[in-house]
Amino acid sequence: MKLATFKVGQEQLVGALEGDELVVLDVPNMRALFEMGAPVQEFAQRAKTTRRFALKDVKLRAPIIPKKIFHTAGNYAEHAHEGDRSNWVAAIKPWIVFFQNVDAIIGPDDPIIYPEHLTKELDYEIELCVVLGRSGKHFSEAEAKDYIGGYVIFNDITARDIQRREMESANFSFSKSIDTFCPFGPWIVTADEIPDPYNLNIELRVNGEKRQVSNTSHMSVTLPQLLSKFSPAGFSAGDILTTGTVSGVAAFSANPQAWYLKPGDVIEAEIEKIGMLRNRVISWEEGHGAPAPAFQKF
Amino acid sequence: MKLATFKVGQEQLVGALEGDELVVLDVPNMRALFEMGAPVQEFAQRAKTTRRFALKDVKLRAPIIPKKIFHTAGNYAEHAHEGDRSNWVAAIKPWIVFFQNVDAIIGPDDPIIYPEHLTKELDYEIELCVVLGRSGKHFSEAEAKDYIGGYVIFNDITARDIQRREMESANFSFSKSIDTFCPFGPWIVTADEIPDPYNLNIELRVNGEKRQVSNTSHMSVTLPQLLSKFSPAGFSAGDILTTGTVSGVAAFSANPQAWYLKPGDVIEAEIEKIGMLRNRVISWEEGHGAPAPAFQKF
Repeated sequence: MKLATFKVGQEQLVGALEGDELVVLDVPNMRALFEMGAPVQEFAQRAKTTRRFALKDVKLRAPIIPKKIFHTAGNYAEHAHEGDRSNWVAAIKPWIVFFQNVDAIIGPDDPIIYPEHLTKELDYEIELCVVLGRSGKHFSEAEAKDYIGGYVIFNDITARDIQRREMESANFSFSKSIDTFCPFGPWIVTADEIPDPYNLNIELRVNGEKRQVSNTSHMSVTLPQLLSKFSPAGFSAGDILTTGTVSGVAAFSANPQAWYLKPGDVIEAEIEKIGMLRNRVISWEEGHGAPAPAFQKF
Repeated sequence: MKLATFKVGQEQLVGALEGDELVVLDVPNMRALFEMGAPVQEFAQRAKTTRRFALKDVKLRAPIIPKKIFHTAGNYAEHAHEGDRSNWVAAIKPWIVFFQNVDAIIGPDDPIIYPEHLTKELDYEIELCVVLGRSGKHFSEAEAKDYIGGYVIFNDITARDIQRREMESANFSFSKSIDTFCPFGPWIVTADEIPDPYNLNIELRVNGEKRQVSNTSHMSVTLPQLLSKFSPAGFSAGDILTTGTVSGVAAFSANPQAWYLKPGDVIEAEIEKIGMLRNRVISWEEGHGAPAPAFQKF
């Protein structure tokens, strides 16, 4: 089942995709649906109403605003290797985890606002994410499978110059947490539709040009390993866990300056069996109606 | 005004402290009160009911579960210097920020459960925190003062062995985010009661022994500087921003093994004009009713 959050006029609704239509679900919002119980598709099925909207007539929103986003990294050796080749600040080892900014979430076709006064090195990173189907903590790898409620696509927008500066103190977070830097979408695909999440093509394009092309089979850890490892922090139903990006980011490319994002760029982040998340980068002035302030080094 | 969240029987309430009594406020919870508008004490005043409970008859809870916790660090040179002296993994420079785990929050007198299978180096860090009185993003240092709604105490419980391992990839978060590692309290003191937050005595004791003794006058940045600097990430009303710890943590002491926390330890974290946050460390077995699993290196 594909579960979307969408807007029709002033109304924000949750729906299940059937063909080209969204069937409205009788739930207050997507997080509330995930909090009802697992598996989520059964609760969604029971919540179906008779209202339907054509997908083309609605505005998709970020599918969920979770309580927490576990941002993990280091799970694709190819990305660690491209980092090493580029003399990146530190090794990108497995088991990196930090929390993302739930207030920076945007949805499909929402603009990413380029903060030109803060960064000159805006990058992209496509990531497959797990949406937690239930709450729990301190669970084993064997138990972890039951916590996978669905999947969604994340584009981890990153200001590399700020990230390098942050890493001087052996931490980074702000560089990935600025307003509009967390696009998620286009919808959540429930776990039953993707029995094998380790064989999905991943592709990120900028203005139609392929930048990241890989497959989840390249992941060096399993999803239950990730979930179990970080479970001492505790998951709430609806939480998102990202799984790290693949090779092909601008910072580690042959010509980073040419590949860094610019206002006007359109990013398409696509994962097989889930869909495509498209976002345009707009200038600060287009986003805020006034020129960007003077540049200030972080 | 001192604003507390507390439990009476099965009922969870929000109240304003008057002498030894809590006056119940007609609000669903503390975050909702902060979302009503600023200054929060005016909205609290209007929400007062005729119900009162003696402080000694209630169980204080964590005063607020915010949408986000901005965990900042590097704002006390004395803590950076003790890190340098101990050959810590990286310099503790200003402008460190990351998001904390809102599901790891506990309140006054709640136990910190020692995860003995994950760490052997459990540490403490007292921190003054700002509670955001309003939502906003991209604001200046001059505007930042209006965003300070109140103050609260945080004890940043940290597994140092896990933190060192995390910092090999130039990040850390999990070591501070494990279940029960985020004690906040004892209540929120509204900003009007502390016109000068830069002259508050800070003291953390373990079993009555003074470990951290300092004053907020040692802070090397101002609160408006911190708030403005991180405002591009966006604040929601009720969010918490921690302001970093002072010297005296176990890891940087003359004898870390002697100073690391052990089950049975009682930690008292006190900040002048706010109050005292007390938490006891309990063993995994006391917390979970079964012996801790086998030790697993992070």
